[in-house]
Amino acid sequence: MRVMTIFALLALAMSIAVGGEAVSQTSTLSRAVQESDSRQPAIPRPGQQAEAARKLADFEARTGRKPNILLFIVDDMGYGDPGAFGGGEAIGAATPNMDRLAAEGLKLTSTYAQYTCTPTRAAILTGRLPVRTGLTRPILAGDNVTRNPWEGEVSLPGILSDHGYHTLLVGKWHVGEVEGMRPHDIGFDEFYGYYRAQKEYIQRHDGHRYPDLVLDADKRERYDAIGADDNLVRGLKDGTTETVMEVASVQDMAEGDGMLRDYTVARIAELARGAEPFFLTHAFMKVHADNWPSAAFEGASSSKYPYKDAVVEVDSHIGDIMQALEDAGELENTFVFVTSDNGPQMDGWPDSGYTPLRGAKGTTWEGGVRVPGIAYWQGMIEPGRVSDGLFDLMDLFNTSVALAGAEDAIPTDRYIDGIDQTSFLLAGDGESRRENVYFWLGSQFTAMRMREYKMHTKVVEPAEKFLWIDMATLQDTALAPWLFNLYIDPKEEYTVGHRLNAWQASLGNEMKAHALTFRKFPPKDIGLGG
Amino acid sequence: MRVMTIFALLALAMSIAVGGEAVSQTSTLSRAVQESDSRQPAIPRPGQQAEAARKLADFEARTGRKPNILLFIVDDMGYGDPGAFGGGEAIGAATPNMDRLAAEGLKLTSTYAQYTCTPTRAAILTGRLPVRTGLTRPILAGDNVTRNPWEGEVSLPGILSDHGYHTLLVGKWHVGEVEGMRPHDIGFDEFYGYYRAQKEYIQRHDGHRYPDLVLDADKRERYDAIGADDNLVRGLKDGTTETVMEVASVQDMAEGDGMLRDYTVARIAELARGAEPFFLTHAFMKVHADNWPSAAFEGASSSKYPYKDAVVEVDSHIGDIMQALEDAGELENTFVFVTSDNGPQMDGWPDSGYTPLRGAKGTTWEGGVRVPGIAYWQGMIEPGRVSDGLFDLMDLFNTSVALAGAEDAIPTDRYIDGIDQTSFLLAGDGESRRENVYFWLGSQFTAMRMREYKMHTKVVEPAEKFLWIDMATLQDTALAPWLFNLYIDPKEEYTVGHRLNAWQASLGNEMKAHALTFRKFPPKDIGLGG
Repeated sequence: MRVMTIFALLALAMSIAVGGEAVSQTSTLSRAVQESDSRQPAIPRPGQQAEAARKLADFEARTGRKPNILLFIVDDMGYGDPGAFGGGEAIGAATPNMDRLAAEGLKLTSTYAQYTCTPTRAAILTGRLPVRTGLTRPILAGDNVTRNPWEGEVSLPGILSDHGYHTLLVGKWHVGEVEGMRPHDIGFDEFYGYYRAQKEYIQRHDGHRYPDLVLDADKRERYDAIGADDNLVRGLKDGTTETVMEVASVQDMAEGDGMLRDYTVARIAELARGAEPFFLTHAFMKVHADNWPSAAFEGASSSKYPYKDAVVEVDSHIGDIMQALEDAGELENTFVFVTSDNGPQMDGWPDSGYTPLRGAKGTTWEGGVRVPGIAYWQGMIEPGRVSDGLFDLMDLFNTSVALAGAEDAIPTDRYIDGIDQTSFLLAGDGESRRENVYFWLGSQFTAMRMREYKMHTKVVEPAEKFLWIDMATLQDTALAPWLFNLYIDPKEEYTVGHRLNAWQASLGNEMKAHALTFRKFPPKDIGLGG
Repeated sequence: MRVMTIFALLALAMSIAVGGEAVSQTSTLSRAVQESDSRQPAIPRPGQQAEAARKLADFEARTGRKPNILLFIVDDMGYGDPGAFGGGEAIGAATPNMDRLAAEGLKLTSTYAQYTCTPTRAAILTGRLPVRTGLTRPILAGDNVTRNPWEGEVSLPGILSDHGYHTLLVGKWHVGEVEGMRPHDIGFDEFYGYYRAQKEYIQRHDGHRYPDLVLDADKRERYDAIGADDNLVRGLKDGTTETVMEVASVQDMAEGDGMLRDYTVARIAELARGAEPFFLTHAFMKVHADNWPSAAFEGASSSKYPYKDAVVEVDSHIGDIMQALEDAGELENTFVFVTSDNGPQMDGWPDSGYTPLRGAKGTTWEGGVRVPGIAYWQGMIEPGRVSDGLFDLMDLFNTSVALAGAEDAIPTDRYIDGIDQTSFLLAGDGESRRENVYFWLGSQFTAMRMREYKMHTKVVEPAEKFLWIDMATLQDTALAPWLFNLYIDPKEEYTVGHRLNAWQASLGNEMKAHALTFRKFPPKDIGLGG
């Protein structure tokens, strides 16, 4: 089934290419160069690569160490939610801390996630498309998988831990909660957080919104029988796993991000005193629906909706954690990246996020996959930069590995989709080295972006406005792929395919090259379906 | 006809009010206070008003003068076009100069224009809704009006000219080209620019896009018979009017904004040497469709479309003019405001602007009326401020008059819709003094915004996507007005009226109060129809 899908993609790419004639696999418009069968081709930028290498060497000479890496991943925050990306005050939830990092760092306006949570996190951790690893959707207690998807994968925290870093995940995991699939099983030295998404705790206790589930004793009993872990957990690489606190009410979850903030702030102070650099992913539980405001942030937004209060809270925690970094004297030693794991989830509307773009979480329209991206590193990234260069969140895999000087640890026996973007981020006028972003919905290839163009071969349509999750259909395009110019049509309203035949052929060739990577490196099937 | 429309509004407002019962005209939710029958009620903000007054007094004590006022009005630029409002690099046209002014000044995310060009400009010039003055659409050569709408109006440049200012308009006028209706007839001491919109010159010469008009000798002859002025004109208050240059080709118009920039730059240097403060409106011809790039900016945008090149050009001119201000030593003496006259005009798509919001120019949806707003004054407006407080561009009338210390010149025998927002702009934490924005489409009342709510009593729908101009219909709402919460639904997708009955009643009362102002001060009819 999966193999058929890949071949269908291949056939499609062939049919897009010019007039049935034999075509070269090399796009005439691509600037990317293939350096190895197992690596995504990247655009060579020798000048900026030399500049970035020099900057990093100077950093190491000056400090005698590798940099810390701090990733902030907000859950389900829309592209348009932060002020720096068009929201903030304008939509009733000010985000001064994110806005400041954007203004004093590099604002990336073409940052792409996968279409939902688990695939995005898995892609960052492995540098690989979820369709390759099988991590296309959450694996929860009660799910039967035929194979642990982490088996045989090489993770970013694993590599960094092997190269002298202390690696920790604070917050949401959502990529498996049984032994062998927990954060501290797959490479994190330390985990402090929740295995699942906020909603899975809140829905279980919110008798107001979910009376059918919460107030029905029989259903609760059946749920309990699944044996899901409802706890805030602390786990260490040696296998030690302890319950910090049980989530026994919506209020417990409402205060969850405050506890995560406290933990990160405390650990930064401790880790700064140690000799090792750290790799810290701070993965918020908020602003995933449903949001219950913590006591300190109830009504903190001018909008007063719980989602908006949650945006204000998350922004405030980012400010506190940046302050902790500064207090610990680590601001100049730390590469910071702020992003979201996918577009806003709209089915909780009106209590939900904002994207100016088409679609939302659960789709590969821009609204589902384009997310805020902010790279900040005091003294190393020039303030005030803005770029629409393509950045796929899985590039954080290669980029982080490069910052740690651990490139040799990237495996060559499998396909790596990520690209080292160190020079894009660090060089004064750095440009992206990524030529294409490929969009998959589960095991279905749907679209590709190249420069300002996005071509869809399958189209996601919701049953009703805002019902993007669980009630959308996937349709093949009819006569030709749908091609949008995102500069003139950021909202993907009108295809311009008929105007751009030559471009379509080139884009088709890029898709074909992508399809061929699956021939050489067949994807894993873990029995999730999809 | 017009009077009937007003009474229809009144009846409607009555019917919205709670359950047919007698209701007070005072909204329970309004914070605004009515100080006079002839003035729009404003929210009292005594603290910030005192602070702003003190700042202005200090300024005058320090400099011995009143401040210059410089308004930049871009033509048809969308809310989403500048980078600071979510566009810029992200959509292929960087706007570093506007972004810098926004970052170093006050970014206003709820700035409102009228739905098209002429009404907006007329509203700024008079502080009055176009429905009151009759200036609801352009008056061009060939238009028959029964009465000069400027007759009896008191204009902003007229007031300032009487109070020691040199007042000049550089650029687009579009509010009449016959004697008595020209800029230098209605209060500007000096005019250097074009009577009409860029399209009216370009369409006349662009044989590629408009062969039916340009290449048909009979039609051209009939056009010429109208006697429209096709020139770049310089006019003075004494009536002297000279042709600077005839627009004889699209290239002439393409270079128009460059000439306007040169003029403004030169005049700033000269005026800075004089004793009078100046009131300068720099009204761009670009980015109104159709755009032809000037030679210096062809391909200057990464998108390469003429509209995008025009955005880059306009932004560059703003940078040059700000530099001229600095070179002349006037940066700290000048209040600067940057805005657009309405939302993007979409019927030239794909060569058109961007709004993330619903609708476009020609409608009173947010996409038609919400525009970028940036207030900048070095040393007087704190850098980095952002506010979603309501700002109607007609507030520039009252605010400019207040900056000039000429409040006594505001007439009391007619209704003034503008509000003095000096304290909103100048006080460190200034908040808007405006409680409501009223939206009219010609002589039809369509909607009102109050805080984050917008209630539509009539709805504009386009015949086809993007065909907002000339092919839209105006429909009454069916059961109830459509009520949107713009914080949770900036794109006006889902009405929440059924959730907010109490609010609807209050908003209805605000509409009723608005309707009553027309009873006391009947609007002018100039025979334009509409």
